[in-house]
Amino acid sequence: MLDGLFRPRGIGVIGASNNPYSIGYIVIRNLQEHGYKGPIFPINPKGGHIRCFKAFKSILDVDDPIDLVNISVAAKLIPQVIEDCGKKGVKFCIVHSAGFKEVGPEGIKREQEMVALAHEYGMRIFGPNSQGAQNADPEISSYANFTFVPMRPGNISIVAQGGGMGEMLKLHLYKVGIGHRLYCSYGNESDLTMPEILEYYGQDPGTRVIMMQTESFKDPAAFVRVAAQITPHKPILAIKAGRTREGSVAVASHTGTLVDQVAMARAMYRKAGVVQYYNTDDMIRAAIALGCQEPPPGRRIGMITNTGGPGIQAVDESVDRGLTLATWSPAGKQRLKESLYAEASLGNPVDVVATANADHYFAAVDTLLREESVDMVLVFFVTAPFTDTAAIARRLKEAIAASNKPTVIVIETFEKYQALIDDLRGAGIPVYEFAEDGARALAAMANYGEIRRRQWDAPPDVAAELVTARARVAQILAPHLGTGRYLSQAEAFDVLAAYGIPAPRLQQVASAADLDSATAAVGFPCVLKVDSAEVVHKSDEGGVALGLADRKALDAAFAAMRDRFAGTAATFVVQEQRPKGRELIVGVKACPGLGSLVMFGLGGVFVEVMRDVAFALAPLGRAEARAMMREIKGFPLLEGVRGEAPVDLAALEDVLVRVARLGADFPAIAEMDLNPVFAYPAGTAPVAVDVRLKVG
Amino acid sequence: MLDGLFRPRGIGVIGASNNPYSIGYIVIRNLQEHGYKGPIFPINPKGGHIRCFKAFKSILDVDDPIDLVNISVAAKLIPQVIEDCGKKGVKFCIVHSAGFKEVGPEGIKREQEMVALAHEYGMRIFGPNSQGAQNADPEISSYANFTFVPMRPGNISIVAQGGGMGEMLKLHLYKVGIGHRLYCSYGNESDLTMPEILEYYGQDPGTRVIMMQTESFKDPAAFVRVAAQITPHKPILAIKAGRTREGSVAVASHTGTLVDQVAMARAMYRKAGVVQYYNTDDMIRAAIALGCQEPPPGRRIGMITNTGGPGIQAVDESVDRGLTLATWSPAGKQRLKESLYAEASLGNPVDVVATANADHYFAAVDTLLREESVDMVLVFFVTAPFTDTAAIARRLKEAIAASNKPTVIVIETFEKYQALIDDLRGAGIPVYEFAEDGARALAAMANYGEIRRRQWDAPPDVAAELVTARARVAQILAPHLGTGRYLSQAEAFDVLAAYGIPAPRLQQVASAADLDSATAAVGFPCVLKVDSAEVVHKSDEGGVALGLADRKALDAAFAAMRDRFAGTAATFVVQEQRPKGRELIVGVKACPGLGSLVMFGLGGVFVEVMRDVAFALAPLGRAEARAMMREIKGFPLLEGVRGEAPVDLAALEDVLVRVARLGADFPAIAEMDLNPVFAYPAGTAPVAVDVRLKVG
Repeated sequence: MLDGLFRPRGIGVIGASNNPYSIGYIVIRNLQEHGYKGPIFPINPKGGHIRCFKAFKSILDVDDPIDLVNISVAAKLIPQVIEDCGKKGVKFCIVHSAGFKEVGPEGIKREQEMVALAHEYGMRIFGPNSQGAQNADPEISSYANFTFVPMRPGNISIVAQGGGMGEMLKLHLYKVGIGHRLYCSYGNESDLTMPEILEYYGQDPGTRVIMMQTESFKDPAAFVRVAAQITPHKPILAIKAGRTREGSVAVASHTGTLVDQVAMARAMYRKAGVVQYYNTDDMIRAAIALGCQEPPPGRRIGMITNTGGPGIQAVDESVDRGLTLATWSPAGKQRLKESLYAEASLGNPVDVVATANADHYFAAVDTLLREESVDMVLVFFVTAPFTDTAAIARRLKEAIAASNKPTVIVIETFEKYQALIDDLRGAGIPVYEFAEDGARALAAMANYGEIRRRQWDAPPDVAAELVTARARVAQILAPHLGTGRYLSQAEAFDVLAAYGIPAPRLQQVASAADLDSATAAVGFPCVLKVDSAEVVHKSDEGGVALGLADRKALDAAFAAMRDRFAGTAATFVVQEQRPKGRELIVGVKACPGLGSLVMFGLGGVFVEVMRDVAFALAPLGRAEARAMMREIKGFPLLEGVRGEAPVDLAALEDVLVRVARLGADFPAIAEMDLNPVFAYPAGTAPVAVDVRLKVG
Repeated sequence: MLDGLFRPRGIGVIGASNNPYSIGYIVIRNLQEHGYKGPIFPINPKGGHIRCFKAFKSILDVDDPIDLVNISVAAKLIPQVIEDCGKKGVKFCIVHSAGFKEVGPEGIKREQEMVALAHEYGMRIFGPNSQGAQNADPEISSYANFTFVPMRPGNISIVAQGGGMGEMLKLHLYKVGIGHRLYCSYGNESDLTMPEILEYYGQDPGTRVIMMQTESFKDPAAFVRVAAQITPHKPILAIKAGRTREGSVAVASHTGTLVDQVAMARAMYRKAGVVQYYNTDDMIRAAIALGCQEPPPGRRIGMITNTGGPGIQAVDESVDRGLTLATWSPAGKQRLKESLYAEASLGNPVDVVATANADHYFAAVDTLLREESVDMVLVFFVTAPFTDTAAIARRLKEAIAASNKPTVIVIETFEKYQALIDDLRGAGIPVYEFAEDGARALAAMANYGEIRRRQWDAPPDVAAELVTARARVAQILAPHLGTGRYLSQAEAFDVLAAYGIPAPRLQQVASAADLDSATAAVGFPCVLKVDSAEVVHKSDEGGVALGLADRKALDAAFAAMRDRFAGTAATFVVQEQRPKGRELIVGVKACPGLGSLVMFGLGGVFVEVMRDVAFALAPLGRAEARAMMREIKGFPLLEGVRGEAPVDLAALEDVLVRVARLGADFPAIAEMDLNPVFAYPAGTAPVAVDVRLKVG
């Protein structure tokens, strides 16, 4: 429980000072000016008084309970301060001071010692090199932070790794009169971790929406676990900094770089039901909407406007963000017709025309909100000089309050009508400036609504069907653990076989003498491949002979290949030649601290040039595997284009589930590429024609 | 010259009224309150006075010159009003009144008669069903418009088809204290056209940037012509409403829908050098930047921040929008090191840290602006409570004023520091709220800078090389004009041949008796195809036999195909079988009122599923053809991936130029698809293997 941090009974400020530019002064001022509901205790060895408060020479001189301290003394003084706080029974120390991890080995040691000392007293460290924590709950009103944005109570909580970004989010909410609930920017994360904070936000009854910004995940698996528990009942919106830092979402299996930070973050967010954003303003607008209203039951939007152009912008943006335009029932249409001006347009958007009055607006909004086919409503409203805008706002509130479908209002106006905007916002209606903003906010709500409704089946334990699977794979991997080596083809295919991942018939061939038994097992046509840990790009190095129709062709190919790789430790495999199907790539990549990512894409240039791939965090249930396949742009190819038969999607789903389970069961699989996988029409299982498997 | 509209010597308001909700009243109030510099003449048959002005019973009673009238009387009264205005010598009539084209045939007739009558007197009609026109030039200050946004002088001019969108643009500029220059929303466009208005804006010395919104182009060719003359010296930023209305940028050659409105607008904008936007706010922010500063000489951005997170957002957004991160010279790095705090980070972004003072900021900005490698600068600045923010702003202005490279500032702050923002804006520096906004604005400036620098060669008259080309094509098309029919294969290939577009050897075959001469001309392997206007999808209907190795195979294929199409008017062609190259699609589609669009994409699923295509307006010069090819996502495939040889791009460019010339020369070619075109490595010309050509 982080109540000591966010609902402290008393706050000590260690390093309190009368210098108005010092952190020790600003924290006291912030706490005082924002009406902290508990007592404030400035601590300064020199005593005196600061902003009318008596300063204590030591925290041990204070009689009242102190749950939280803000520490801004020099790093070298910290150990003594921590010792005193521990003796005092403090629960949380916000350490603003720098000079720790960020300055190198010496600082890391200092940080570790500080945390160890705090733990001796059952105390937790927030930071160091951190900004602070706030709770705008009027019953607490703690601004234990040295920044400058005025605090206004709201229901959106913010957790940001970067202080500048955290302030940015808080600032915009303040500017639009919305405010926030809990806030913190956690700096070095030496002890108290982001997932712990997130968990607390998840449990805080006053928090309706969580916004977060992350630069790097200290414990990604914990984040996914915690976030996944929150998102079914509370939205988490997130920005991961540095989406282009690693270059791009490049996926090039031939470079060995299967996944990157960007893909990892996307997969984590998807698994945990976190809605990802790239732009600060997009995320804030979505948070505002979700802080006001419940997400819509579906993706069908109804729109009302009193001027054409912005209506079209809203349509474009809505469709672009995956919403669909609702249509009205005959009864709804009739009511619109009877209620509006003759020149009104009754399609979607309904154009009530610029001279529409309050009754017209009411009728339009009320009609749409009552339509079964409408999941959400966007109202655009230019404050035309010849209408009673206050009356329109009043009736809009009335109609919206009577429905539980979300409705956002876009008002085209200026400062003269600010009271109107404030009034609507005060009634819990999200108000935006541009038509596109309203559409984006509704799309964001719809996206979260889908996350809340999604029913992903638990990842099945496919290995359980094959009782020996885990043991078999462990046995194959054992001799290679820690080597960073590629398995032989025969071993890698054995791993697939253990998990029931279909592959062609295959036999190992050490010398020409083995060809008899190989051909007996495999048949013709067949493929001959070199099998050597040193030969990674087999085709490029002349290590693959395809379409060998008979024994004569095989013998010739074998002789040639044996000569080519003479003097190496290479052996060979003879493999059943499968007819060419739809070419796919399925991959696994271990992400330390997180687990394994699964990659899915169409083969060849679709991955390497078009970068059309999807990633997911293993293990996968069938529903998630299905969603993952549908994420690639080229998905229609799998459904069949120009009269082609669709591939067997259910069978493909099964392959993904098995591959994901394998990755999840064996984090020692650093990288595995099934490339290509051939998929076939219904009735024929997809088959992994080639595999590379690297053990970490 | 539209001086009478935008710089009128006197304005008459016909339909003037004392009803404060009437257009006739609001226009007078707007003119008066915004300090119109000429005389205002209310006209009302009842006389009296309106807002202290004496009302004239007829415009003919006024002695002074009146250049412009605003008319808001009922449509049936218009003819008499126009007659009077004509006699008075009025130059422009803004017709606010509705009841014209938008109400059907009767209204269209009324509109045409009104225009004809006006022309008898050398008068021009603006509208009808229009909002009005404004000029915020303090020497004129004409608000001849019935809307409500306060007018503030600026250098951005706006022309919007939709009044709501026009106001939206004006409104945001007003809110951020920037204002506008010329403004109009032109309604029905019955007489005075958008391109004429645009041309006037282009020539107005007080207009530095033009923003436009269009719903549909009445004369697209005129727009392209006019805009292309303006953009080399003045940016035009544009929104085309309805980007998703037609469904999508779907291109499916098998449905015959080669292009749509969206593709058409993109091609027009590209040709004319207009920068296209989809979001209102994006466009406005770009306009603000371009209204303040000159575009940068290149795409290299330097960034300075005093807090990390927003800096990363700016990096992400910049890279995403195609800017590149500048690096500093050793001397620059040295100066940064000497000028900034030890804990400052000297990469890009330079992090001067939150406690940086005015001298630090000055040194950082001044250093970056003097770096040869920096084309533009983004400054991020959180108004930390422990710094002298006014001093920082002062030094920032100083550094920025000394350079001609664009610099935008993003300030993270709130109303307490509004004066700071106003001060920087007053100094001609664009200021934004979010880091991403600043990056987007700079990227927009860089995009316009490239348009200004682009040197596209004139489309060559390829037909001139082949003196008979035009005559030959005209002759082939002549019998089909107006039929909407497809040419025969033989004819279509003849058209290509006339323009020097390479194709396989080919011979027509009516009966088995022709096979001898055909094989003599074409050789083996060959292709047999049905050739019939009725058979459009030849392959799907069994009308193509590929890879016929010898005469025996050809004879068999011919017999089978003759049977299959027995009883139809089909003939056949025998065609040289070309080795498979990189598959491409090149198309032409006539756009009435505009000319012809050229389409380019990779073949098959790349177009149909991935929708990876580029469009351009014919004719094309080589540079534009080159730019067009590079626009598709799959372009790296043409450059060669995984060791493949690149295709002959110069030869492909030549094909595009020739196809574009053909389309431009013959608008009667309603649709032409070269599908596939095979492209080969350098030295082998690309070849159009199949062609469909429909005559309009």
